[in-house]
Amino acid sequence: MMGPPVHSFTALTTDLYEVTMAYGYWKAGVSDHEAAFHVTFRHNPFGGQFTVACGLATAIDFLRMFHFTETEIAYLASQRGNDGKPLFDSGFLDYLRDLRLTCDIDAIPEGTLVFPNEPLIRVSGPVAQCQLLETTLLNILNFESLIATKAARVCLAAKNDPVIEFGLRRAQGVDGGLTAARAAYIGGCVGTSNLQAGERFGIPVSGTQAHSWIMFFESEDEAFQTYASAMPNNCVLLVDTYNSIEGVRHAIDVASQLRKEGHEMIGVRLDSGDRVALSIEARRMLDKAGFTNAKIVCSGDLDEHVIADMKQGGARIDMWGVGTKLTTGQPDAALSGIYKLGAVRHPGGQWQYRIKLSDEAAKTSCPGLLQVRRFQQPDGRFIADAIYETDHAISEPCVVVDLETEKKTEIPAKTDYSDLLVPVFRRDQLVYQTPNLEASREHARKQLDCAPPEILRLKNPTPYKIGLERSLHELRATLIARAQEQLK
Amino acid sequence: MMGPPVHSFTALTTDLYEVTMAYGYWKAGVSDHEAAFHVTFRHNPFGGQFTVACGLATAIDFLRMFHFTETEIAYLASQRGNDGKPLFDSGFLDYLRDLRLTCDIDAIPEGTLVFPNEPLIRVSGPVAQCQLLETTLLNILNFESLIATKAARVCLAAKNDPVIEFGLRRAQGVDGGLTAARAAYIGGCVGTSNLQAGERFGIPVSGTQAHSWIMFFESEDEAFQTYASAMPNNCVLLVDTYNSIEGVRHAIDVASQLRKEGHEMIGVRLDSGDRVALSIEARRMLDKAGFTNAKIVCSGDLDEHVIADMKQGGARIDMWGVGTKLTTGQPDAALSGIYKLGAVRHPGGQWQYRIKLSDEAAKTSCPGLLQVRRFQQPDGRFIADAIYETDHAISEPCVVVDLETEKKTEIPAKTDYSDLLVPVFRRDQLVYQTPNLEASREHARKQLDCAPPEILRLKNPTPYKIGLERSLHELRATLIARAQEQLK
Repeated sequence: MMGPPVHSFTALTTDLYEVTMAYGYWKAGVSDHEAAFHVTFRHNPFGGQFTVACGLATAIDFLRMFHFTETEIAYLASQRGNDGKPLFDSGFLDYLRDLRLTCDIDAIPEGTLVFPNEPLIRVSGPVAQCQLLETTLLNILNFESLIATKAARVCLAAKNDPVIEFGLRRAQGVDGGLTAARAAYIGGCVGTSNLQAGERFGIPVSGTQAHSWIMFFESEDEAFQTYASAMPNNCVLLVDTYNSIEGVRHAIDVASQLRKEGHEMIGVRLDSGDRVALSIEARRMLDKAGFTNAKIVCSGDLDEHVIADMKQGGARIDMWGVGTKLTTGQPDAALSGIYKLGAVRHPGGQWQYRIKLSDEAAKTSCPGLLQVRRFQQPDGRFIADAIYETDHAISEPCVVVDLETEKKTEIPAKTDYSDLLVPVFRRDQLVYQTPNLEASREHARKQLDCAPPEILRLKNPTPYKIGLERSLHELRATLIARAQEQLK
Repeated sequence: MMGPPVHSFTALTTDLYEVTMAYGYWKAGVSDHEAAFHVTFRHNPFGGQFTVACGLATAIDFLRMFHFTETEIAYLASQRGNDGKPLFDSGFLDYLRDLRLTCDIDAIPEGTLVFPNEPLIRVSGPVAQCQLLETTLLNILNFESLIATKAARVCLAAKNDPVIEFGLRRAQGVDGGLTAARAAYIGGCVGTSNLQAGERFGIPVSGTQAHSWIMFFESEDEAFQTYASAMPNNCVLLVDTYNSIEGVRHAIDVASQLRKEGHEMIGVRLDSGDRVALSIEARRMLDKAGFTNAKIVCSGDLDEHVIADMKQGGARIDMWGVGTKLTTGQPDAALSGIYKLGAVRHPGGQWQYRIKLSDEAAKTSCPGLLQVRRFQQPDGRFIADAIYETDHAISEPCVVVDLETEKKTEIPAKTDYSDLLVPVFRRDQLVYQTPNLEASREHARKQLDCAPPEILRLKNPTPYKIGLERSLHELRATLIARAQEQLK
């Protein structure tokens, strides 16, 4: 990675209430009492049945650099309560100034397939510290996981065709574009149009010309020829400025000229109109003219559903440029990640488990310090996931209880498994070797290969088997009953 | 504004194709020939009939700092074409290294109401420079205008109730949150939960506590009391962790204790459940207990439609905290802004007008260097907008031609008007005094006051009267006919 970090996450990239709560803990003398929080989410995005975890590398960058600067302390010192007096004691500001993270943090590596209610990150340590990390961790994991998942869906729809992320111009801010390019690459895209993402993350970049190039010249012919003269080995000619078929004809003329000069046109790009019919005709024209290796690139308002329909309709597309709907994660635009308290430990005491009740039983949170056990076939194919509490022994055979239906599934003894959360920080030490981007991308690819195909379907996918390990389910039921008793 | 600029826009915050096109112009010896581009958009977002222009201040920051660093030049030098050779000549890299913007830039001030096909920004100058600015200007204006518009819609739905932006945790990256907070403030929000936005932009921040605060303690009562002890003048108590009505009861207990000690509870926050019924009951309970000034804050999955329905249903809410759907601009998530070439001028020549054809006549671009004239009643109320070409005289009376229907509207002579685009840069000089955030916010408020009420309706709004001034319409029709002739 070249250049300075581009993310401008700071300790103030957070909601005021995280700081007022930290202040409250500090005032009450309990800021160093321990707590355990988890980032989880309630629903897979895009009507699908899987999510690709993403954002851990960004989160690690943030966590390593976490501290309050003097400017930030001065800003907090300037905050006033309703009475016009300083909101925070100066002693608390000193506490923040000296604060260095000492939490234990475990997380699921980037590129791993994850499912609702599974903890993506567990943070345990001094409660005030845990609280101060909430908003930023959610921001990072929600956005990157959303986009990595969208990219995986688009790439699945494109089958083996390469997909390029094209969405910077419609992204939600500069970082919206940059971070989306990174997440889309992990999710399966082969590259991006975004040069900043190329420079920062080493992601392959691509792009040739826009309609304005064609319009600048007197004719499309002149525009194509001028481009071909400048970059004879980089010609993907955009053919739809005036009329796509006419454009393909002009592109073939230029390609013939290039070939005489020892160069090959890479291909043409279709950006509007009925691109199924146009691609079939363009393919026919290119083949007939002897350009059987020329690629047809398709762009313009694409997503996984449009691509699947176009392929179904017989489109002859070799490469897809997907912009707005990928880069902004439409139609969801946000993953519903939350950060919930699972347990509290006062000095010298045991972990006390906590839940948040909800009108819907399945939305009541899970207590404890959580881990996810993924059971797999010997060849790696996923069987089921069990969320368990780390201090509660897992019965053999393991019984998984579905959160919605309470249906129990017994996993045969001796089934292979792996535990998904791995240690990332132990107090102030980073104990995790962050994989590089290529390794995370490859991990995502392998995960998708090992997933039951029915959970990956675009239409009517089947939910993956996931639930609470039996003793966690019992612990949760006990806490729910106790809380409801107290409410009576 | 304190601290360093937080946006990490650089000259590389762009698509590769902008640079390959600039290279192509440079290779062809025409990089300094003049062009005029406009940022426009095709549809108002959210099914509405207005858009709030936003992002100009951010764009100015970007434009003022625009240059390629050595690191960026080195990255571009590392790019290879399909033949494995450097994509760019070293002479072009020298050109980029020395490049300083010399474009004339005109724009519509932030907070102004704008409509489809109106130019938000006009960039005219050396074509290679214009091209290099495309992606970044679109990114900035698309996102900020989207969020300012969403905020305006939410605030209109909330009528005179204050609305606070709460969405950082689900925003699209750090800058997605920060920039959204700024745009939401211009659009009418009174504040944000985002401390970074508070520090950078001086936006008022608010927030008190989350469910985790309540859950950390043995009981809700203890949690409320502990918070009240720490911040007796900053108490908005979150009441729905276990049961909202029970929570209001506990809040009243704490408020009574506070009052004895000379403090007033600010209010309670409802975050789930049937908040219409809960707010009515909470209001009754608070009033009965003598807390008639206690506010009821509502949050949790809100947008303009939910707020309008809740108010319609008689909800007794005093303040709204709106997160995900505001901050990510759901359900659209992107404004469809585009950057189109309107004219070209070769050295010593006249402006040559350009259009891009489309299958739909209304989607064909507008030629020329464009300006928007807004006709208004003497009291400021908007009558109609006419897009006109700056070198074509406007007839008196002005005739406005609707782009879809071709219907003509005559504006009476002597009607008041203002031209919306103002000079921002003249060559390398910033000639615009950027208003501060409060002024832009106030401008948006006044614009909404002057807009026809029927365009602001949430349901079935009427389109605002906007079209091409007659001579521009004729110019466009002539160019369309000529282009279609050439295609035959």
